[in-house]
Amino acid sequence: MNAPHISRDAALRARAAKVMPGGPGHVAVTHTSPRYPQFFERAEGGHVWDVDGREYVDLMMSWGPIVLGHHHPAVDEAVARQAALGDCMGAPGAVMVELAEKLVARIPHADWAMFQKNGSDATTACVTIARAGTKRRKVLAARGSYHGSVPWCSPSVVGVTEEDRAHVVRFDYNDVDSLREAAASVKGDLAAVIVTGFRHDNVRDQEMPASEFARAARALCDAEDAALIVDDVRAGLRIHPGGTWETVGVRPDLSAWSKAIANGHALAAVTGNDRFRKAASEIFVTGSFWYASVSMAAAIATLDALEREDAIAHMVKLGTRLRAGLDAAARRHGVGLRQTGPVQMPLFLFDDDPDFRKGRAFCEAALAEGAFLHPRHNMFLCAMHTEADMDRVIAAGEAGCKAVAALA
Amino acid sequence: MNAPHISRDAALRARAAKVMPGGPGHVAVTHTSPRYPQFFERAEGGHVWDVDGREYVDLMMSWGPIVLGHHHPAVDEAVARQAALGDCMGAPGAVMVELAEKLVARIPHADWAMFQKNGSDATTACVTIARAGTKRRKVLAARGSYHGSVPWCSPSVVGVTEEDRAHVVRFDYNDVDSLREAAASVKGDLAAVIVTGFRHDNVRDQEMPASEFARAARALCDAEDAALIVDDVRAGLRIHPGGTWETVGVRPDLSAWSKAIANGHALAAVTGNDRFRKAASEIFVTGSFWYASVSMAAAIATLDALEREDAIAHMVKLGTRLRAGLDAAARRHGVGLRQTGPVQMPLFLFDDDPDFRKGRAFCEAALAEGAFLHPRHNMFLCAMHTEADMDRVIAAGEAGCKAVAALA
Repeated sequence: MNAPHISRDAALRARAAKVMPGGPGHVAVTHTSPRYPQFFERAEGGHVWDVDGREYVDLMMSWGPIVLGHHHPAVDEAVARQAALGDCMGAPGAVMVELAEKLVARIPHADWAMFQKNGSDATTACVTIARAGTKRRKVLAARGSYHGSVPWCSPSVVGVTEEDRAHVVRFDYNDVDSLREAAASVKGDLAAVIVTGFRHDNVRDQEMPASEFARAARALCDAEDAALIVDDVRAGLRIHPGGTWETVGVRPDLSAWSKAIANGHALAAVTGNDRFRKAASEIFVTGSFWYASVSMAAAIATLDALEREDAIAHMVKLGTRLRAGLDAAARRHGVGLRQTGPVQMPLFLFDDDPDFRKGRAFCEAALAEGAFLHPRHNMFLCAMHTEADMDRVIAAGEAGCKAVAALA
Repeated sequence: MNAPHISRDAALRARAAKVMPGGPGHVAVTHTSPRYPQFFERAEGGHVWDVDGREYVDLMMSWGPIVLGHHHPAVDEAVARQAALGDCMGAPGAVMVELAEKLVARIPHADWAMFQKNGSDATTACVTIARAGTKRRKVLAARGSYHGSVPWCSPSVVGVTEEDRAHVVRFDYNDVDSLREAAASVKGDLAAVIVTGFRHDNVRDQEMPASEFARAARALCDAEDAALIVDDVRAGLRIHPGGTWETVGVRPDLSAWSKAIANGHALAAVTGNDRFRKAASEIFVTGSFWYASVSMAAAIATLDALEREDAIAHMVKLGTRLRAGLDAAARRHGVGLRQTGPVQMPLFLFDDDPDFRKGRAFCEAALAEGAFLHPRHNMFLCAMHTEADMDRVIAAGEAGCKAVAALA
């Protein structure tokens, strides 16, 4: 940590340790590797620079929000134009209506939209709308799925009461029987089934939704008159423009969106169908910055650019190249690397690696070669990544595989 | 509503009604007056323009966030500088540490700070930290106090379960006996007492915290080893730079901040003392945009400008002028106008006005004269308001009093 090239990072860590609980808080890189940079200076396209001036191909894209690339010109221009007029005003701007119309036009299940700031705001609003609309309480959620960091769904129970999650019942993603059993256990009180767009739980292989599972979830919600909620906060706009479950032809009643929706500007959205329009108008959810216009202008520009640039196809093409290149590198070094889920949201896990020793060695070696990766969380491609970026990550991954092979 | 000068507003309302639940959602002006503009076009200093080009002296300041004024040059410059580098990146920027240091230096009770997006995020984090630190569950909150729109504290129970608020016990603000009774009712399980900076409940006269009440709350939390939380989301930075309870010499363990902290950029913060540092590091709260640098750069510029311009003193001076002018107008017209609470956060209520008929008539008449007011929610001054602005609001209020006096 005392090498001259990371001196600014080390100084900031020491200062943060004094004035922030646990140092830099919940993005502390101790969760990945202490050798990782803790602070970033700037970002451009698919690249980031740490505070000591080192540049990386960024495969985290801010944990999802940057879907077009940092400083995408169309988004920057829309932001500048709206910011010159006004952002957080006492009433919304015309951009709120334009954005709602755009979402309704593009998302097949959506008859309406409403806006928030955090992914957790959107998932919580979906649950509240479902309860208001059904007058029931129970919510079925998959074991291990992440729906936010608020008490009803946080992966941690520190400071959380039993009552906060009294009405959440768990099932296993892609397991029809376990879903039906969970539903049977709350018969007559089922408000909603909430599922992530695909299975992207931390530290386990990713899975797309099985078509049979998706259809069973839809049929169950129809039979029980409950809401099917797709939490597309993480996957939304990277898999399918109309929502991730469009890939299996199943439409939810409510969807939660955030992360990529405004290319890094703070925004979340709930879209819903007419069955839940009245309930959505009856609940009370609001926030001081929820009607600010700049993030909505950014979202309009983001949705337009995603379509105009055929960004998902681009990310799939690059992700396919990356996956093949890393598979080949792993084979060459005899390393058991598992790459799962959609190629545009890569996850790298290693066989026989319960404590992530291999994952960390891989990522540390790749970092030294200029690739910013994560050892146990899924990563993200963006529209401004290039084939050259992927080739650089593959070369960095080659160094990573060498490091894994060299472990005792 | 069909007058030519509001045609763009009417068209946007009609479009919103199709694609948003209940029209423009929770900022629907039907809650104030249907004659109010629903959409704003732009803002500058202490003024806003609606989408039909009408200009108003803005006394809502976006419901609090704009404390310096719209487009304050120092904030705009800091935002542009940081945005050119990076905003939402995979790691925080140096500005996060600088901002935490600045808060710790200025807020007497604060040994550390952490950041979120919504006021509700901050109040919820305070409660979670208090529970984690005390290993207890009960939270005492004042009847009618607003702490956010999430299930544990929402003023609405639509879509909310009983369990969501199972551990919240109510008392009356500024009533020592009721606070002690509430505490006695949860003996041995008290995690926290949460209070707003001053009593600014919707639709009732405002009250500053009574010194005796504040001291009793502090003594109670000390005796019970519970956390005293001041929710300064709404009042923070407009009453006292170190937190509103500095005015009564009582220091909380935890404070929630948001609204004014970044002059309209989406940001919230929790500050706390060393007693709760460990607990704060142990809870899990995070969000996709919580580490974005632009809002933190805006906050640093905002805190500096507030101090440099002696903004609170300026707002008090203008608020005093406004209050005296409106009192005189009300007397002239024989209207029972009650102005309560700190002058820089005015609230106008009328005697014998249970259905806000007078309040609405007052605000509608004032609107026609170019003052954007609210008939039952407190309002906000900003540092860029001028004496001329106040005189214009006083003249508008004169028209408002005339309208009230003319009511049957």
